[in-house]
This record gives sequence, structure tokens and C-alpha cells, in this order.
Amino acid sequence: MKFVTYKGAANGSRVGVLSEGSVYELAGFADMHAVIAEPAKAEAAAKAAIAGGNGTPEAQAQLLAPIARPPRIFCIGLNYASHASESQMKVQAVPTVFMKLASSVTGPDTDVILPYNSTQPDYEAELAVVIAKSGYRIKAADWQEYVFGYTILNDVSARDIQLATTQWTLGKSFPTFTPLGPSIVTKDEIADPHALDISLTVDGETLQSSNTKHLIFKIPQLIEYISALTPLEAGDIISTGTPEGVGLGRTPQRWLRDGEEMVVRIEGLGELRNKTRSEKQA
Amino acid sequence: MKFVTYKGAANGSRVGVLSEGSVYELAGFADMHAVIAEPAKAEAAAKAAIAGGNGTPEAQAQLLAPIARPPRIFCIGLNYASHASESQMKVQAVPTVFMKLASSVTGPDTDVILPYNSTQPDYEAELAVVIAKSGYRIKAADWQEYVFGYTILNDVSARDIQLATTQWTLGKSFPTFTPLGPSIVTKDEIADPHALDISLTVDGETLQSSNTKHLIFKIPQLIEYISALTPLEAGDIISTGTPEGVGLGRTPQRWLRDGEEMVVRIEGLGELRNKTRSEKQA
Repeated sequence: MKFVTYKGAANGSRVGVLSEGSVYELAGFADMHAVIAEPAKAEAAAKAAIAGGNGTPEAQAQLLAPIARPPRIFCIGLNYASHASESQMKVQAVPTVFMKLASSVTGPDTDVILPYNSTQPDYEAELAVVIAKSGYRIKAADWQEYVFGYTILNDVSARDIQLATTQWTLGKSFPTFTPLGPSIVTKDEIADPHALDISLTVDGETLQSSNTKHLIFKIPQLIEYISALTPLEAGDIISTGTPEGVGLGRTPQRWLRDGEEMVVRIEGLGELRNKTRSEKQA
Repeated sequence: MKFVTYKGAANGSRVGVLSEGSVYELAGFADMHAVIAEPAKAEAAAKAAIAGGNGTPEAQAQLLAPIARPPRIFCIGLNYASHASESQMKVQAVPTVFMKLASSVTGPDTDVILPYNSTQPDYEAELAVVIAKSGYRIKAADWQEYVFGYTILNDVSARDIQLATTQWTLGKSFPTFTPLGPSIVTKDEIADPHALDISLTVDGETLQSSNTKHLIFKIPQLIEYISALTPLEAGDIISTGTPEGVGLGRTPQRWLRDGEEMVVRIEGLGELRNKTRSEKQA
């Protein structure tokens, strides 16, 4: 199933299922958290909704971030050797985990605001895991039980702010800096999340192109490592890191500019499109 | 006013006001977020509750963390020169800001669990600011408008985990690693938050002793800096950093052990007591 959140009448949001280009409303589910909490019931409701017909063409349904405000967004730094190398940083013996603030989440087809107080905005295409249920000290072998599904995350980063100190969170947490979506694809549809092509284009030019087989710390290890330190919660996001090709690592360095379109594509997960827009100083 | 959260009947929690050793219930306020949202109404209710009598002696009221789950906990690293020096880290040109996860919050007089998968648990006495209302790009001069009050935070840190990579959050976010309280003292009671004695003892031995006048980045600058990057929200915590004397910086290094009592005292804010308890591996 591909679960989505979309704009309903009167600016409210609805959850739905995406099937063959149409969105079908899931009646009885207030938001994606309710879907994650009762996956079997949601799947049955989704099948019934599709069978019932009356879908909205995807182009007319305004998709929102599938989870508006994830409890937490754990991000993995330096999880492709090629990106660690271009960043002139060392891969560590354990995953490098930092947070993005949930207030930075935005949906597909929305503008990413380039803040006036950064001169180095950058992109990062990432495979994101959506956690199914809470767990502490999860064993790597049990990882699939804790995965609800997968989505795409663009880890937009203001490099000047991010690297002004040792701690990365704030430079990656401006409003709109975390495009998420377009849908959450349930785990049953992704045979192997460690064998997915991943790419990012800006205005049609391919700037990142890799495959999730190159992840250094794989999803089972990430779940085991993080949950050994802090309990995971349903709806948490683990974003697995970005491959080489970010603006920071290019020669010359390349920063996002006003009016560019970023498209992140991951095999089986669709594409996540966002335009940039420069903020005017008040 | 000194607002507290405490255990009610049937394991629920109540908000109250602490006055001359007794706790008076604030009727009509579901939790501390409701108090922060309507400070004038809360103050009036507090005065009425105190005038009405029927307080519970503080020793019988089981105080909980004043805010069970703050929206975010922003922590400032290296904000006393003496602590930066003992940590062999450099003070930066801008504040070093990292997150503690809200799931790590615990109350006064609860046990801090020393996890079996860390060998270097440590303490950090800190003055914490409670944010009154949301704001983005707040000017330093307007800082007081955005402060609801002050409390004490013990930034318990597993140094081996914290320093295994460059990113500090997870090593500081084990469950119970953020004792908070005992109350939130409203800003009108603290004439100058930059002139408060702050200390920490372990089993009666003074290991940290300083004054908040030594803060490198003061509260107005912290509010301006953080809110220039991400909007602040009502109930957010900004923990201002710890002075010298942590276990990491001592010779020899000194780690928390099973059954020790930490007491953090800050002038005007009372004291925050927590015992340590070693976790047994399952």
C-alpha cells in the first residue's frame, strides 16, 4: 500500500491510499498515526476504498507530508563512504546520529524556503524508514517487525550554519528544510530496501545517483543502535543518510538558488519534488 | 509563582502552585502547557488557591517533572569558558546547540538509571529557561517577553556514547537522563537570571560550583540565535550549559556509580535531587 496524507475540504487533512494514479480516502482514520497504529485495519480499509471507486486523480489531490509532525526524525550522517569522503569526514565505528526538528517538515510540491540568513543551502537525497511501533533495545534480527514502511526525505542543510559549530541539528531545521513523501510505501511492497536506486536532480541535472546497497550501516543495525540508547516510537523517522554529490562536496561548491526544482527519486517510492524560493529579509 | 506538576490520585498528574512549603492545586488547568498558555489566568488561579488554603505539604506531594514532555529541549554546549577548557573543546563564535530528546525527562526525587551499555555516565548542572510563546527571528532586546520562567536541568550524559561520534544527542537521551524541576519559577521572581549561584553535589561532595554570570552566551543571545534558525514554541526548554567540574573534566575522570545522590542547587530555584541506579542487563 501507498498511504498518503492530502488536503481535504476546508484546509483539513485526510489520509488516503494511492492506487494507479488515484487517491482514495481512508474513512475512520484521523491521520497517519492512526494508520500506523492499526496497520491491518488500515490495509483492509484501503482495499475497500479502492474497490469502492470514487478516487481523486493524484494530480488534483494536494499531497501533504505523509506525517506532518513525526515524533522524532533521526538522521544518519556519513552513511555512504563516497559522501563521507567528499565531506572530508571520517566514517565512525558506530552510526553518527543527529536530529532534524519535526517543525522543518514540508510536503511534496511545496516550496523549500532558502532563508536569508544562510548563504550555503544544500540538498541531500535520503531513504527514510517509518517506525511501526515503540521498542527499546531492539535486536537487529527483529528489525522488520519495527518497520511500517519507507518514504523519501530531502535533508536540506544550511552548510554555513550546520558547520559553524560541531552540532548539526539547527543548520538542518529551518522551516521547510525537510521535504517528506510523496507517500509511505508499506514494507511488503519493498522486497529489499538495500537495493534501491536513489537519485537527485536539480532543474533536470543529475547531481546524486547511487543505490542503497552502498549504505554502510544498514537498517537493521540502525534500528538496533538507536534503540539501544533511546526507545523508538511509532511514527519516528530514521533517515538513512545521503550518497555523494551534494553541493558541499562539489568543485566548485554548489548552493541552491532561488527558483530551482529538486527531484528526489527512489526506486519503488516515487519522486519527491520541491522548488526553492529565496526568503526576503523582513 | 512556583508552578509544579505533581502526582494526583489514580496516577494522574495535577498542576499546582508551591507556596511556603505547601502545594495548592490549580483547578481548571490540565497540565503545565495550559498554565504557560494563559499565564495571567494561572497566576490569578494560583493566588486564589493559596488564599483558599487546603494545601498539601510539599513532602507529601510527589512532584513530577514540571513539563513531562517539552516540545523540544535545546541545550547549549561549552557555555562556560571553564567547562570548555576542562573538556578540551573550543568555544565557538556562535552558541553550540544540540538537542536532548524529551523522552529522557524525569522528575525530582526519581532514580536516574545508569544504562548497562555505558561505562561513563556523568552529570551537568544547568539553568534552564522555559519559553512562554512561539516566535521566529526574535530580537535579543525582546527576550523577556518570550520567557515564562526558569527551572533546573541536570544534563546527564553517557560520555562514551556522546563522544563516539561528533553528534551528542543520543549519548544524552537515555531514559531518565534529563531530571527537570522541582518547579518552574516565573520570571518575575528572578531579578537577574545571570547572577545565580549554581552548584552540584554528589553524596554531599561539591563537584560543581559557579554562578550564571559566567555564561558566555547569555539568555537574550541564545533566544535570538536559536529563533533565527527555527521557531521557538511555548513550553520549549533552553538549557544554558554547565560550568566546570563535570566528571569528564576531572583528574582522574569520575563517573556516576550506583546509589549516589546528585543534588543541583540554583539560587531562587530550589534544589533538584536524584539518585542513581544501575540498570541490570536483561
